[in-house]
Amino acid sequence: MIVVGELLNASRKAVGTAIEALDADYILQVARDQLEAGADYIDVNAGTFMNKEGEYVEWMVRLIQDNTDAVCSLDSPDPEVLNRALKVHKGTAMINSISLEKERYDQILPIIAGTDLKVIALCMSDEGMPVTREDRLKIADRLINDLCRNNVKLENIFVDPLVQPIATDQSYGMEFLNAIEGIMTGYPGVHTMCGLSNVSHGLPNRKILNVSFAIMAVAKGLDGLIVNPLDRQMMASLVAAETLAGRDEYCEKYLDAFRSGNLL
Amino acid sequence: MIVVGELLNASRKAVGTAIEALDADYILQVARDQLEAGADYIDVNAGTFMNKEGEYVEWMVRLIQDNTDAVCSLDSPDPEVLNRALKVHKGTAMINSISLEKERYDQILPIIAGTDLKVIALCMSDEGMPVTREDRLKIADRLINDLCRNNVKLENIFVDPLVQPIATDQSYGMEFLNAIEGIMTGYPGVHTMCGLSNVSHGLPNRKILNVSFAIMAVAKGLDGLIVNPLDRQMMASLVAAETLAGRDEYCEKYLDAFRSGNLL
Repeated sequence: MIVVGELLNASRKAVGTAIEALDADYILQVARDQLEAGADYIDVNAGTFMNKEGEYVEWMVRLIQDNTDAVCSLDSPDPEVLNRALKVHKGTAMINSISLEKERYDQILPIIAGTDLKVIALCMSDEGMPVTREDRLKIADRLINDLCRNNVKLENIFVDPLVQPIATDQSYGMEFLNAIEGIMTGYPGVHTMCGLSNVSHGLPNRKILNVSFAIMAVAKGLDGLIVNPLDRQMMASLVAAETLAGRDEYCEKYLDAFRSGNLL
Repeated sequence: MIVVGELLNASRKAVGTAIEALDADYILQVARDQLEAGADYIDVNAGTFMNKEGEYVEWMVRLIQDNTDAVCSLDSPDPEVLNRALKVHKGTAMINSISLEKERYDQILPIIAGTDLKVIALCMSDEGMPVTREDRLKIADRLINDLCRNNVKLENIFVDPLVQPIATDQSYGMEFLNAIEGIMTGYPGVHTMCGLSNVSHGLPNRKILNVSFAIMAVAKGLDGLIVNPLDRQMMASLVAAETLAGRDEYCEKYLDAFRSGNLL
């Protein structure tokens, strides 16, 4: 499982406050905690700061990479912010994100075409949010083919089929999960990646829904997750689910997690 | 989810002792606890008692049905035991189980042919345990077709693809799960049913594996489980998984479970 740690997002109040105060200690601690908990990428988002987004993202990337071995997921729809961050980022960043919406696609494509950057490709078009598995597969197919034609390697593409709340329509969970399966079996080598807490929007006790949905998505082939890596129940369940899904030779990761006391 | 409560099994020491002592209070309490926790069928097994199995099974069925509204899953490979139990059983019992092993098939088929009995059909043949998805689908196809030809209704068949330990081979989990999906999509109306604790055999902290595997199986279409219904974490996870799988209109069962304090 490729884990993107989601905590350094300015829309979270404590993080927004720390960014504005240039509180290096706080930002670094959150980055380090996520790395230690198993994050492969540290998402960096300063999207609530209209005019200073680029400045803040650059500051965070420098700060994190000067003090840790992290690679970042650069989380902005603004090509200027992304280019500014990429100038200082060391190693291969992830771009979060491109979509099939024309404006966004045209702005983000030049940044990633012909590079080794990873990119999250949202199953969103100008026709709005997809509803069915087929809606998602149609957008995914166009995104994957267009990106590959523009020299983005298949294995650098992380398709996000976009989770929708089960409380809105009882079919939304399986439509999403079946899209994951369709993408992972239809384009061998491509990845899938999503945040999934939206599935429980509007319902009580969201944790059991979020954890269960993550496990179900692993059964369908999901191999990337934007998540809070400090959520120990979630991380333990992902280890178990991946072992059960046959992604853990000799159950080594499972046994390591057990020995480290990380299985709960 | 169709839940078969597994606790009244003579191979569990306390139950074996209670059966031998004809301890009606104990047996009834275990039956009632399972019903209250959501069991749809109460499995009745006295398989450790060679010569008294029939007598004990008949006693348990009478006892349980004289005092509760339960229907039973009659758990024996012995046709005499099953026939004796069926003589006293009220309502539509489940037969646990038939398989494609010739002797077992020939002995059990006459009991269920042309009846409304439910039957668990194990994906086992005289060639031994199935390993791959294809092995299972081949046996399932023969069982389903043979049973239907003998006037067993498709919706009364519960195919058990047989879980094998992930510690033995990392592919065993997905082969099983993909068999569930193949059966449920290939034979609309049929059910699948299994016990799944075998998946974690030989590994520590089995609970997280068993619960995660149940959730994954729901994502693949599983709609029946032989389980300990007093395992609150398991039952809560099943409610969440079924809601996410689109089997819970308006999230009513989920919200009921939340209000009853059953979500943990």
